[in-house]
Amino acid sequence: MDNNKQAKPRVLIIGGGFAGIQLAKNLKHAPVDVLLLDKHNYHTFQPLLYQVATGALEGDSIGFPIRRIFGRQKNFTFHLAEVQKIDAAAKVVTANIGDIHYDYLVIATGANTNYFGNKELEHYTLPMKNIAEALNVRSLIIQNLEKALVTFDAVEREALLTFVVVGGGPTGVELAGAIAELRKYVLCKDYPGLCRDDMKVYLVEGKDRVLGAMSEQASVKAKKFLTDMGISIYNGVHVSSYDGDTLKIDNGVDIKTRNVFWAAGVRGEMPEGLLPDAIAKGGRILADEINRVKGYDNVFAIGDVSLVVSEANPNGFPGVAQVALQQGKRLAKNLVCIINNQPTTPFRYNDLGTMATVGRNKAVADLKHLHFQGFFAWILWMFVHLLSLAGFSNKSIVFFNWAVNYFTRNSDNRLVIHAFDTKTMMTDPAAK
Amino acid sequence: MDNNKQAKPRVLIIGGGFAGIQLAKNLKHAPVDVLLLDKHNYHTFQPLLYQVATGALEGDSIGFPIRRIFGRQKNFTFHLAEVQKIDAAAKVVTANIGDIHYDYLVIATGANTNYFGNKELEHYTLPMKNIAEALNVRSLIIQNLEKALVTFDAVEREALLTFVVVGGGPTGVELAGAIAELRKYVLCKDYPGLCRDDMKVYLVEGKDRVLGAMSEQASVKAKKFLTDMGISIYNGVHVSSYDGDTLKIDNGVDIKTRNVFWAAGVRGEMPEGLLPDAIAKGGRILADEINRVKGYDNVFAIGDVSLVVSEANPNGFPGVAQVALQQGKRLAKNLVCIINNQPTTPFRYNDLGTMATVGRNKAVADLKHLHFQGFFAWILWMFVHLLSLAGFSNKSIVFFNWAVNYFTRNSDNRLVIHAFDTKTMMTDPAAK
Repeated sequence: MDNNKQAKPRVLIIGGGFAGIQLAKNLKHAPVDVLLLDKHNYHTFQPLLYQVATGALEGDSIGFPIRRIFGRQKNFTFHLAEVQKIDAAAKVVTANIGDIHYDYLVIATGANTNYFGNKELEHYTLPMKNIAEALNVRSLIIQNLEKALVTFDAVEREALLTFVVVGGGPTGVELAGAIAELRKYVLCKDYPGLCRDDMKVYLVEGKDRVLGAMSEQASVKAKKFLTDMGISIYNGVHVSSYDGDTLKIDNGVDIKTRNVFWAAGVRGEMPEGLLPDAIAKGGRILADEINRVKGYDNVFAIGDVSLVVSEANPNGFPGVAQVALQQGKRLAKNLVCIINNQPTTPFRYNDLGTMATVGRNKAVADLKHLHFQGFFAWILWMFVHLLSLAGFSNKSIVFFNWAVNYFTRNSDNRLVIHAFDTKTMMTDPAAK
Repeated sequence: MDNNKQAKPRVLIIGGGFAGIQLAKNLKHAPVDVLLLDKHNYHTFQPLLYQVATGALEGDSIGFPIRRIFGRQKNFTFHLAEVQKIDAAAKVVTANIGDIHYDYLVIATGANTNYFGNKELEHYTLPMKNIAEALNVRSLIIQNLEKALVTFDAVEREALLTFVVVGGGPTGVELAGAIAELRKYVLCKDYPGLCRDDMKVYLVEGKDRVLGAMSEQASVKAKKFLTDMGISIYNGVHVSSYDGDTLKIDNGVDIKTRNVFWAAGVRGEMPEGLLPDAIAKGGRILADEINRVKGYDNVFAIGDVSLVVSEANPNGFPGVAQVALQQGKRLAKNLVCIINNQPTTPFRYNDLGTMATVGRNKAVADLKHLHFQGFFAWILWMFVHLLSLAGFSNKSIVFFNWAVNYFTRNSDNRLVIHAFDTKTMMTDPAAK
């Protein structure tokens, strides 16, 4: 990498998620050079991963090339790179494309799936934090529906047709709901030989209610929606083990299943090299109210990977897109203040509300002064998500897909382009 | 598999390409049970693979779930299966889902890339016969553009930016043209630091003209289009070797390149078990004028895998979609005749014409009584391809993408969702 000292200070951003992209955009007119690194060449709209996983959307529709976002921003550079190590003393990060100097480093690497150290669960269950993982979920679902049709061992057939989602947050609720809709609208239509009662959907959640971060009202209604859709919900229980065959829950229930999707926790994901003092539980990076990392002068953390604790907010902010977007925007202003030796402004989170969708015409919304559920929440959910998607093409194609899916109650995107290999529990690389 | 004798005879079709799908559709009202097997759960619209490879279209847009095509056809069953062996004496095929009985077997397994036995070329060059392979081509192109930006070794940088397409048939011409358009419209816009002259595109063809199966006029014009777009064409030469680093051509030219795409030949692909006498050069299955395989009573071959030779037609029909579609349709009628002990009708190919597109506003068309090139050929090419795509959604989304790409001269689909691993020369399976 070219490490010549820049005329303008270099802001190095690791991660092109909501936080990193927003920060880079807001530095457009700042007296800095922005270098953004990501291991993918695209930004992922994570809230819609579950729709890719269930074949409602194409994978490409929720990704947007990072270079396209910044086509006209003169002070911006992107490189496809995986950062391995931070050396804050030398102001250098080590990446697979070489060593890169920075003046200000911003860690916006997000979160990854948390298995809480359980290697067996990590091996046998499927996560869904990026497009490739969502496509694995899609492949496994379709492959197992196909397998069930040619399996005459009744026990194995039932295991193939049993789908368990672990985790009752928005991701888990949305995924379980979408699988239940597959059962309702697609199963009998596209899989003659299978009927609705053959397929079982479970949702397993540690807290005593689903959508625990939302209002009581939203939780109750979401649970009713899910139950009405025929999903069996276990609340206040934990998964003890899963060996690829039997899922054991600590309430004594055993479920025979070949499909376990893990949405039960996240942990911060970051390069090596930060002081141990800066890392809190859940692998998140402790940062102060201007998102400066504890113990560092010119290293910052924003988005899901950061943990900003205050008396008013002892558990930090929730790991949602809104916080990431607002932190990115605020940090852009603060970086300019720091460069100009002006006072900075602490980050304040403006919570615009939370929403989750359960199925067709069914969503729950907690706005600032208003909690509501059902059809209008669902319309609002679609509207907000459409507007938030990057790019005119993605917006249009997602809207088109939703419209077609709404009227036909089916989708054309249920393709297994890369098979999922259940022996290695990885995408099948045999493409040539 | 359920091998109970059917009340109606079972027509087993291997392969869901143009030929197999058309045959199954045309058997809708026939007194048979149709069982179609394919190793993918979708039909691929192969003529647009090069647009997936160059990021103009999403992979899912040119695939359509086979189950969705036949949702309402009562006598149709689909299974996701790979057939390994045919036992014609027992009227059984062996597949990864078990043994399957048939009364009439139709082999419609298509063609795969032909390396003419050269293992080195097979290992180091990229084929493009299915969606996963097209996505590999896309990934390699983007990865190497990204790498070139951070490579300061001038020789290596040039190799990363040199793209060679081997094969001057429609696929090779269309792919080379699309890569040249990437260079023209996207390179400077999305990759500041790279300019047009940095990137080189070559087309290498063994015959003395490109599009050798089309008219002389089409060949000449296509070559002019390609040359005007800055593509270096070598005609009447062959690739001697490629070790992943240097491509050697038998005219003495060496090209340093990290990107070689192989579109220089196809060979029939089929399960084991047919008599050696039934297999001709290029691995195609010898069939008579009703597509009955040589030496068999109730085994048929249609589409690219079949070779129907007659005095009028000593080299067989060209391996194009039209032949496959027409053979599928004709065989449906003939199977009914055979079952009813009525006389069959020999297949006659009605050549509606051939087209190939080179780039924006540039295509060549040979219709029955009319050869023309340029803008109107391009419009016709788009029109015909749009209408041929399966499904309202695919048609609409492809049309939308084309319209956006036409006006913006760019596309949003240039994502590397599954990286291509140049060490193993396979899709990178590391998705979890």
